[in-house]
Amino acid sequence: MMRQWRTLATLSVGAAVGASASRLWSLRGEEEEEEAALLARVPLVPVPSVHASSELTASRPSGGAVMKYGFPSLANVRTKESYVTSYDPRTRTPAWVIERLAGDTLGGTADRKCCDFKEDDSVHVFHRATNDDYKGSGLDRGHMAAAANHKWSQKAMDDTFYLTNVAPQNPHLNQKAWNNLEKLCRSLTKCYANVYVCTGPLYLPRQEADGKLYVRYQVVGRNHVAVPTHFFKVLILERRGGQQGVELRSYVLPNEPVDEKIPLERFLVPIETIERASGLLFVPNIVRASGGAVSAIANK
Amino acid sequence: MMRQWRTLATLSVGAAVGASASRLWSLRGEEEEEEAALLARVPLVPVPSVHASSELTASRPSGGAVMKYGFPSLANVRTKESYVTSYDPRTRTPAWVIERLAGDTLGGTADRKCCDFKEDDSVHVFHRATNDDYKGSGLDRGHMAAAANHKWSQKAMDDTFYLTNVAPQNPHLNQKAWNNLEKLCRSLTKCYANVYVCTGPLYLPRQEADGKLYVRYQVVGRNHVAVPTHFFKVLILERRGGQQGVELRSYVLPNEPVDEKIPLERFLVPIETIERASGLLFVPNIVRASGGAVSAIANK
Repeated sequence: MMRQWRTLATLSVGAAVGASASRLWSLRGEEEEEEAALLARVPLVPVPSVHASSELTASRPSGGAVMKYGFPSLANVRTKESYVTSYDPRTRTPAWVIERLAGDTLGGTADRKCCDFKEDDSVHVFHRATNDDYKGSGLDRGHMAAAANHKWSQKAMDDTFYLTNVAPQNPHLNQKAWNNLEKLCRSLTKCYANVYVCTGPLYLPRQEADGKLYVRYQVVGRNHVAVPTHFFKVLILERRGGQQGVELRSYVLPNEPVDEKIPLERFLVPIETIERASGLLFVPNIVRASGGAVSAIANK
Repeated sequence: MMRQWRTLATLSVGAAVGASASRLWSLRGEEEEEEAALLARVPLVPVPSVHASSELTASRPSGGAVMKYGFPSLANVRTKESYVTSYDPRTRTPAWVIERLAGDTLGGTADRKCCDFKEDDSVHVFHRATNDDYKGSGLDRGHMAAAANHKWSQKAMDDTFYLTNVAPQNPHLNQKAWNNLEKLCRSLTKCYANVYVCTGPLYLPRQEADGKLYVRYQVVGRNHVAVPTHFFKVLILERRGGQQGVELRSYVLPNEPVDEKIPLERFLVPIETIERASGLLFVPNIVRASGGAVSAIANK
């Protein structure tokens, strides 16, 4: 069942993957002409100065600010202690959430027993998800930025409980395979100087009996909170020892029970698949911020 | 069939309409306290200066700029000769399109025979709708800002043919009832000084056999252009003779054949229904720009 879902989703997203995929993934430090051509083709996305940038940098002892690699979109951007998010007022879930993990953010004494999920008053009441919306849905309030990533400060962990950092998630997925993916992100801080994680929902089409493609997703509660069909995580990995450039890994998991025996590597996808399906852009920002040297783990 | 669709849609959207509806619609010039309370509750949306504002004002002999009443959202805003639009890179359709109609914009010699639908190069190729996407879909390239509203200049009419002003639309709807609604908008310029029209797609949930609510829509073409379940038009009507305030009318039509014998008044809905379902906000901007005097035609 789960495998079938994934195959269908990959198929329908894959149908939109064009010839430019190979170009995006062929970026190397020495291929500067190609990179210049790519940058010329990609509309420049101005990255606004966000006040919390300095706050985030200031409150952490070392490492880059969370927005070092820009934002995948600029709509409804909100800054919290531990992450930056773009809220989608139509689905009542985040479009994406970016956080930075490193050795210094993982340790600490913050306790999730002190945390409660809370509405985000900065969202207009017409578009705000509430705890009541999730009640009786049979779905978890799934964190995008994981609580356990932010033990460094109780405020940072508290902020991960805003419903603007949450989407309806299958409980089995949330507690098993997705939890394993979150653990993997944390364990990568042992090998990399900084791990930037961007997480969000997807609404992928499936072919139905009439041969046509349809996007179909449930909405829950009085405010019609959308239940994503899938979730993505894009990891931007900064090497240690001042090595130039970054590595990318991008995952897509279906919002349903996923057998923990399946290695997480099976859920790696080309980042272009996520960029096309989500309406977001990661690579142009990453290429600019990393000086052009991008090693595409996901595509190997 | 069509009536059933509409009833279901109204039902599912109606379920999210709360007690605050009556407050929004009770705004009158003399009820300043209530208005102040409303404004305090609504997050302020800064309206950025858009260069084309002056262009649009300059190129037309009289009347307000198209953005006089602000924008219902600030994501991916693009300005064309005859309208301002917010593009949704995930659905590959506009989120909304605003235009201004008045006696002076309707007359002229622009000819739609000189126009061709065209891709918008300002959208990244991953998220851009193409003419090929619509081919063989059985759906029209439905204008949001109507071509016939902009006979005042060939460039203005040409610009309505950008696919960033277009969404997949049922041909019967496009050519019959929707066309009648566009004619109604034009005819209102005889009674009102300016008619601001904001048009966009909706993706409304329906109850399925399992008793749960689902959003379900087709996607067409290689780029998966979303086929909206419904379309809205919000009309902001400025009275003649310098009278204070504006009147509102807001319509929702299903994206399917609609019997022309049904009076268009039957498709009037409270603007809150559109605000909740679309993730957009119209009323806060309108209240600010009109000095608080809003007469709610749609709710009478």
